[in-house]
Amino acid sequence: MVMTPSALDLQGSRLKTTTIGQYLVEQLEALGIGHIFGVPGDYVLKFMDLLLESSLELVGTCNELNAGYAADAYARLKGVGAVCVTYGVGGLSLVNAIAGAYAEQVPLIVISGAPPTTAHQNLWNPLLLHHTTGDYNLQQSVLEKVTVAAVTLTPDQATQQIDQTLAACLRYKRPVYIEIPVDLVAHPCTIPAQKPLVVRPSSDEQALREAVEEAVMLLERAKYPVILAGVELHRYGIQGKLVELVEKTGYPIASTLLGKSSITEMHPQFIGNYVGALSRDYVRDRVEQADCILCLGAILSDTNLGGYTAQLERGKLINANLQRVQIKHHYYSPIYLGDFMDCLMETLSPRSPQTLNIQPTSTLLGDPFVVQSEAPLTNARFYQRMNHFMGEQNIAIAETGDAIIACIDLPIRQDAKFIGQAFYMSIGYSLPACLGAGLAQRNHRILLFIGDGSFQMTCQELSTIIRHGLNPIVFLINNDGYTIERMIHDGAYNDLQPWKYHKMPEIFGESWSCEVHTEGDLEEALATAQLLRDRLCFIEIHLDRLDCCERLVNLTSRLGS
Amino acid sequence: MVMTPSALDLQGSRLKTTTIGQYLVEQLEALGIGHIFGVPGDYVLKFMDLLLESSLELVGTCNELNAGYAADAYARLKGVGAVCVTYGVGGLSLVNAIAGAYAEQVPLIVISGAPPTTAHQNLWNPLLLHHTTGDYNLQQSVLEKVTVAAVTLTPDQATQQIDQTLAACLRYKRPVYIEIPVDLVAHPCTIPAQKPLVVRPSSDEQALREAVEEAVMLLERAKYPVILAGVELHRYGIQGKLVELVEKTGYPIASTLLGKSSITEMHPQFIGNYVGALSRDYVRDRVEQADCILCLGAILSDTNLGGYTAQLERGKLINANLQRVQIKHHYYSPIYLGDFMDCLMETLSPRSPQTLNIQPTSTLLGDPFVVQSEAPLTNARFYQRMNHFMGEQNIAIAETGDAIIACIDLPIRQDAKFIGQAFYMSIGYSLPACLGAGLAQRNHRILLFIGDGSFQMTCQELSTIIRHGLNPIVFLINNDGYTIERMIHDGAYNDLQPWKYHKMPEIFGESWSCEVHTEGDLEEALATAQLLRDRLCFIEIHLDRLDCCERLVNLTSRLGS
Repeated sequence: MVMTPSALDLQGSRLKTTTIGQYLVEQLEALGIGHIFGVPGDYVLKFMDLLLESSLELVGTCNELNAGYAADAYARLKGVGAVCVTYGVGGLSLVNAIAGAYAEQVPLIVISGAPPTTAHQNLWNPLLLHHTTGDYNLQQSVLEKVTVAAVTLTPDQATQQIDQTLAACLRYKRPVYIEIPVDLVAHPCTIPAQKPLVVRPSSDEQALREAVEEAVMLLERAKYPVILAGVELHRYGIQGKLVELVEKTGYPIASTLLGKSSITEMHPQFIGNYVGALSRDYVRDRVEQADCILCLGAILSDTNLGGYTAQLERGKLINANLQRVQIKHHYYSPIYLGDFMDCLMETLSPRSPQTLNIQPTSTLLGDPFVVQSEAPLTNARFYQRMNHFMGEQNIAIAETGDAIIACIDLPIRQDAKFIGQAFYMSIGYSLPACLGAGLAQRNHRILLFIGDGSFQMTCQELSTIIRHGLNPIVFLINNDGYTIERMIHDGAYNDLQPWKYHKMPEIFGESWSCEVHTEGDLEEALATAQLLRDRLCFIEIHLDRLDCCERLVNLTSRLGS
Repeated sequence: MVMTPSALDLQGSRLKTTTIGQYLVEQLEALGIGHIFGVPGDYVLKFMDLLLESSLELVGTCNELNAGYAADAYARLKGVGAVCVTYGVGGLSLVNAIAGAYAEQVPLIVISGAPPTTAHQNLWNPLLLHHTTGDYNLQQSVLEKVTVAAVTLTPDQATQQIDQTLAACLRYKRPVYIEIPVDLVAHPCTIPAQKPLVVRPSSDEQALREAVEEAVMLLERAKYPVILAGVELHRYGIQGKLVELVEKTGYPIASTLLGKSSITEMHPQFIGNYVGALSRDYVRDRVEQADCILCLGAILSDTNLGGYTAQLERGKLINANLQRVQIKHHYYSPIYLGDFMDCLMETLSPRSPQTLNIQPTSTLLGDPFVVQSEAPLTNARFYQRMNHFMGEQNIAIAETGDAIIACIDLPIRQDAKFIGQAFYMSIGYSLPACLGAGLAQRNHRILLFIGDGSFQMTCQELSTIIRHGLNPIVFLINNDGYTIERMIHDGAYNDLQPWKYHKMPEIFGESWSCEVHTEGDLEEALATAQLLRDRLCFIEIHLDRLDCCERLVNLTSRLGS
């Protein structure tokens, strides 16, 4: 490529050139993205060629929605994820996955190939290319509704567009969209001398000082303060600050469901997950009867608050979100959550945990689980067993429905993680999420809890999990239908075709599976799964049709009314 | 419910009242919709209860995208179809299916439940309900981009909104969207005294007369005229007019790929499907060398025209679409296609087919197919065999990729039909389409031709096909990867995990399946499938990795360049 005289920066040195496609790939590499999920299609193949030559691994999924889910879970663990698809049939199949990522604040980069920039000029008016409706603005106009930045790259502005869009993803921890017309992949561009800094949200110093002063005054005065931790701590990677704050102050800490695993649940000050009336009684009372609640980075959505059964009095609430702090009925803004936590840490005086009524979750494990070999397995006993089975090197993924609610009190150990769509609740999410999470943390073994209805949505992604040699233990909870819907409001629409679920993995490749009816069956299955650490283990758990956790019954009767 | 004094019509008689949900159900019934496809979710359960009590059959699919595809195929055969889902996770999963219906002009009614109208008013600001992002305008704003009318029902306007939206669907033969907040399902409403007429597109009389005059002049003067039939004839149900016009004039007729089966392909004047350079030589020459081409209701998209290899000179073209007629380089509008055809029929003088160089497709069947039992089955021989196997009571569904191109010359008999997404080309469409088509015409047996890559996208819908006792013959063409993409541009992304495809149906229920390697295997399989007319028969056809039809090689080298 010939360098033009203009390709000189202000200091007169030569600017480096590359292609637009290559520039985008290198920016993804620079973010530390190791895997990118997607499905090929002709408008994106040239870009995918560049991915194949890069340090990124392109992970083909069975369909695009599943690619979106997988990339979402990957981003939850790695801090950022990416998905790459073709135009129309690809990008428009992703919308629900991206909306979920938007709702739950997941930093996800959506890249779509697109028809050439010449598509608008043709004898046939308008040009009707396959995978389109003839409206070449359609996909961006849809995706921009579920992203914080959406661009279609242009020949002259591409590098800036890429930099700004990726910066928005990192800053706001939400999805962004980049559309790359197929004829621009190899288009030359100049590498910018300076990248825009990815500025973390910033604080107004006066507002910060005032908010901290008021918060400290309220907390110091409180006899039974409590910390309630939310998902934004995960997203901004400031769980470390949380642990420091907890240990410095001595306060008890509870977590919202979406924020679950922001601190090891074996921590002596961790009292449990607070989900309104769905919480254990002690947790509910301890949080709701606290005289001051320090709520950090929580999304206050209905399901995250137990179907709005939460009783969090505003008058006792210090609610710090990403960019603002609310105390009682007034706001301070802009205040970055991390700054707020730093200042509290400096200012708050330590308390003795003994004076604060703390019953740590870790004491719940209590007596060993005594197997009653011949007894039919029940939902309650299954999750009790799981409380003991879960280890430090596990990631628990819980599907929307009975599973996620049953997992509220599943104790997440040091280094372990929990993933569940506790707010957006798109069923089918968790199986592709198992793929994404498995590739993000290969040294952890995933325990997936998924119901039959959800499994039917996205079952084919078992194939990709097997293809990549991942070794999750999949617990398929077969209770013959959409049990959560049955609890809300039953009807024929909640019936499902009964599948031989445990026979599915062998269709896709090397794996192990079995059926479980009794407690004895479960023990055998768990023992085998622990031996077979090199492959997917699939355990079909048969439960009675309406055997679900009591908490689900409570939640759904509320949602239904 | 108490009648208010205002519930009187202009003549002073009492107006009947009902509920908004019930009114919508009755309008769907009035359209003759027998089946509605969907997935339950709490925001839509109250409306689904009304569906269960109605004459409509609610067909639950494994996921929402598949519901959209199934309803699309149903609408192609029945004239209108419907899909019903919950908010967010449901409606946003449908977008790709609805975009395909929009592109290919399929009349599809999308109904979504939604959070209650009170969702905006809450202490927590904004209210964050599960399945949403907190933006309660999101789903309509997305769906309105792929529909001709989109509405969220309101308490006072609901009946008018419903009437107008359904009318738009029927008039424009494209998807529409109706969102019904859960608290309005049981809201009372007054049944309107008069429905708006569903007016078919109308013609300007002067324009019509002028266009017909010019067209007739050109056609009468032509020595070798030809008719090229498109998909709008299907959509407006005016295939009858086409047959009349063909028989009255004596002209030869070809069809576009999307318009395939608008006339029985055994008709003595039917010469074949015209797809640019992908056509048989005779068809291509006969159409391109015609001195006047009467193109009726065709969508001139790239794939429909053989990757823009079509040579249709504007100077010889009379191109009539739904609402306008283009002759050479000028337009007449508004002219309704049906009116234009009526006038041509009245005015054109009959010709003797013998003088018009007509080689009917029916002669292609030629010699009987002689089986070479031990010979490995090839792509070419498989479709030759299918040419003989296809009968009058079959519907052929061809998946995007090699299959749809291989089916270009598959002869569609009297009463038989062809379905394929020849323009939008979303892979995975055809399997759920098989469900929709099977329920729309239970007295036809479906032959589905689908590749392995496409099958992996939506495979779970085999379950629903089996659940409803449908009896398609599924030909799973296993050539180890995305063959169409390999032809365009190969790379590791075109490899797939190899499944034991033929083992999948038995997981879902009562069915029969087998594997085919040789011509002898195929004969056995076909014989068995013909005996087993009460169930799904699944035939996995093993082909060499790059064994695809020559025409695909031609098309893809063009798309790639």
